[in-house]
Amino acid sequence: MSKASIDLNSDMGEGFGPWKIGDGVDEDIIALISSANIATGFHAGDPNIMNRTVLMAREHGVGIGAHPGFRDLVGFGRRYMKESAEALVNDMVYQLGALREFARLHGMRLQHFKPHGALYMLAASDETLSRRLVQTLQALEPTLYLYCMENSVTCQVAREMGQPVVREFYADRDYDASGSIVFTRYTKALDPRQVAAKVLRACTEGRVRTVEGQDIPIDFDSVCIHSDTPGALALVQATRAALQAAGIRIMPPSAA
Amino acid sequence: MSKASIDLNSDMGEGFGPWKIGDGVDEDIIALISSANIATGFHAGDPNIMNRTVLMAREHGVGIGAHPGFRDLVGFGRRYMKESAEALVNDMVYQLGALREFARLHGMRLQHFKPHGALYMLAASDETLSRRLVQTLQALEPTLYLYCMENSVTCQVAREMGQPVVREFYADRDYDASGSIVFTRYTKALDPRQVAAKVLRACTEGRVRTVEGQDIPIDFDSVCIHSDTPGALALVQATRAALQAAGIRIMPPSAA
Amino acid sequence: MSKASIDLNSDMGEGFGPWKIGDGVDEDIIALISSANIATGFHAGDPNIMNRTVLMAREHGVGIGAHPGFRDLVGFGRRYMKESAEALVNDMVYQLGALREFARLHGMRLQHFKPHGALYMLAASDETLSRRLVQTLQALEPTLYLYCMENSVTCQVAREMGQPVVREFYADRDYDASGSIVFTRYTKALDPRQVAAKVLRACTEGRVRTVEGQDIPIDFDSVCIHSDTPGALALVQATRAALQAAGIRIMPPSAA
Amino acid sequence: MSKASIDLNSDMGEGFGPWKIGDGVDEDIIALISSANIATGFHAGDPNIMNRTVLMAREHGVGIGAHPGFRDLVGFGRRYMKESAEALVNDMVYQLGALREFARLHGMRLQHFKPHGALYMLAASDETLSRRLVQTLQALEPTLYLYCMENSVTCQVAREMGQPVVREFYADRDYDASGSIVFTRYTKALDPRQVAAKVLRACTEGRVRTVEGQDIPIDFDSVCIHSDTPGALALVQATRAALQAAGIRIMPPSAA
Repeated sequence: MSKASIDLNSDMGEGFGPWKIGDGVDEDIIALISSANIATGFHAGDPNIMNRTVLMAREHGVGIGAHPGFRDLVGFGRRYMKESAEALVNDMVYQLGALREFARLHGMRLQHFKPHGALYMLAASDETLSRRLVQTLQALEPTLYLYCMENSVTCQVAREMGQPVVREFYADRDYDASGSIVFTRYTKALDPRQVAAKVLRACTEGRVRTVEGQDIPIDFDSVCIHSDTPGALALVQATRAALQAAGIRIMPPSAA
Repeated sequence: MSKASIDLNSDMGEGFGPWKIGDGVDEDIIALISSANIATGFHAGDPNIMNRTVLMAREHGVGIGAHPGFRDLVGFGRRYMKESAEALVNDMVYQLGALREFARLHGMRLQHFKPHGALYMLAASDETLSRRLVQTLQALEPTLYLYCMENSVTCQVAREMGQPVVREFYADRDYDASGSIVFTRYTKALDPRQVAAKVLRACTEGRVRTVEGQDIPIDFDSVCIHSDTPGALALVQATRAALQAAGIRIMPPSAA
Repeated sequence: MSKASIDLNSDMGEGFGPWKIGDGVDEDIIALISSANIATGFHAGDPNIMNRTVLMAREHGVGIGAHPGFRDLVGFGRRYMKESAEALVNDMVYQLGALREFARLHGMRLQHFKPHGALYMLAASDETLSRRLVQTLQALEPTLYLYCMENSVTCQVAREMGQPVVREFYADRDYDASGSIVFTRYTKALDPRQVAAKVLRACTEGRVRTVEGQDIPIDFDSVCIHSDTPGALALVQATRAALQAAGIRIMPPSAA
Repeated sequence: MSKASIDLNSDMGEGFGPWKIGDGVDEDIIALISSANIATGFHAGDPNIMNRTVLMAREHGVGIGAHPGFRDLVGFGRRYMKESAEALVNDMVYQLGALREFARLHGMRLQHFKPHGALYMLAASDETLSRRLVQTLQALEPTLYLYCMENSVTCQVAREMGQPVVREFYADRDYDASGSIVFTRYTKALDPRQVAAKVLRACTEGRVRTVEGQDIPIDFDSVCIHSDTPGALALVQATRAALQAAGIRIMPPSAA
């Protein structure tokens, strides 16, 4: 059965100092999404950009979340690093607080938390890390939404411990037969119509075609489109238009 | 007239990764002070150290404050950088939030805020920076103590705008005729008895001898001893003993 | 009297990790210039980009030089930092060697040395820094061209000590009455025709109009166009075309 | 049969900015060793420390080598990172050149190359990485000694391609039955007499006791003692004394 509403999330604020990533059109994309994952400085983002992005999200009524990554600027947080769960969670606490302070400054509340890149993928399969992360979120804010994938360890642990989850569908990543996305460090340009059709089908039929060529069922609460994908704005525009044409409302989990 | 009580503050958590600064004896010093300025990652400190330092402070009943610096690890935040007040305050908001999240995790409240090194000295004489910083603190937490020097612009602006201040006396820095400390990037070892005597005299007589050789009046609420000064532990021990022998209680501003 | 030939230099390799600066069209610009100032990692550039840029320069027969900056990624090396000449020169030696090793790997020789941004401007007026830098270059490679401005202390010291200089004219910066450029952290888009006309006039008449509106004489060996200026490619194209139309050859100092 | 001479190597210059690691007694240790592996800035070391360490090595007639690590200051290069061989070798080229320039400045030649920590261990078992590294060293300097372990892929590839190797014995690490060292991020204090006896036995008998409790044969050209091990100076002193008492000369490979 088709969804009546869906969250549309994108990574925002992923520049650094004078540098841009992707097409650098956050101010256009943020007007079209319902949730913004704001980079918090370790893999991308800096205090000036975080401040600006929080203000843009407030202006557009977009839910904001911390998007912490590995401490790896040059690798954009897309390189796996071997580190203890304790140290990685400390890195995430640090970054979460940094963003929360900008939210506080501008009278906003954080809506969600979503690890970035290799840290997200690592948590998805590492129970020790997911457990320590969720325990820490429980201590910090047991109502903060945790973005994750349906079939991830992160999702299982969060449900078990009572942290609310928002399960994601990746518009711009391929799926394999296990229902996992194929992790990639670099994303190539995609066809907006195909991406929009893939999302619409997932929302209305609950199915996605895998790289192996078969259909698998998929359930989710939010659609993610990466803003560093070349042509990201067109992907978001096409997806948003397709969803709206089908009568599916785009709204953040905090408003659902 | 002699003080009945005084705050004793020290910079804590100024290691980075595997590295130590000074004698690296935070766990000894923190048991002897009443307020800890915790490094927040830009000039020193990392999430693991911050987490550990907050826990140590809680164990010893020590007030905690954010101690943000310039983004300059190799220079330890003691090199002046030319940057806009807006950007510098964003850097401070980021670091303040990072520490606040560790306090939140461990059920503590932040007591104070104290910029580090060259950023502290810059704010002391730069009205635009002090004004923007105090405005921001007013928006974030108008009861957070701001550590500063009596004769600084920071102190004047904070008083004018209603942010509570804790004025510092520097046990391990020299004073000049203007009542300012002589800023230095590196501190040499000092005689604990001389430092203790200098502090005691300042507490009981309200006077300090300058580098020019004359006495000047000095007023303050807290005594700062830098933990990266070689032999810092002995300085803190001697100072604490001298104050206690004179019947002066050591207590944080939040308990006063 | 008009110049018969001129060097055209541009900063190259100023991305970092996945990020681009300006329009990110180094591969187009490098085909049009004669000398490339290659960022060496402290303010921009990383080993992958440096390797790629050296290869591109070799392919196009472009002279290469080290372009070291302050250790300040987020500020892109355009923020002044207060540091000793000794430490700043050590930073430059480090970066110079890093680039030289990529040149060695690809069978190239370094042609020149040009400090970046605030470090270039600092050296231009700081005799202690310029003297230590030139002494060090004399010890390392007394034939390496040092890029600088005619009226700078760097130029005077280099001439005095025998280090060969290449004096620059800035196509995309304003001049003041003293013959200095007006330093700026961010550059706005410029009109290619105006820029080309300004360069051509400087090459043929030896004069430039200042921000105060008067003409001053100017002498130089190379024209610099910053690649992070928006629309930089069009500026380089227009300038190159104007010079060639006037019969002025574009060639690096090492070929002159 | 006992060795007549042996190289004694230690990591040097592993501080960063104001910070020290281990006991921070490089100036004492360097007088007792024959080869110094100098940290090159990515995991430890900075240009000032590199400059100072090269000068100290020259004063004591110690062979110098580049000791590049992962770009991971906070983890001290002891955290594995997933990255392409191409990018990792570019990181090593960059760091090698940086040190070579300081050697050039002070009239020294580099003697050797030794990756640090997790990068050394990764290369030891990763043929793609070792092959690309050795190919690059062949192009840069086919006579530069490559430090590695006898049973490593790095050693096999270097021999195959003709790069000279110096095989290491680790005085302060445990061996397992495979003849590999047990990699550790943190080292605890060790008994100098036991360490010296272990080294002496390895030099005279060619055997070492593994963590499993059995003896294995071991062959090597150099003994490594880490300077960040607590009490490192005493370990080096005891080892040097034991070797000298046994008539084994301590000398660098470049003098052998």
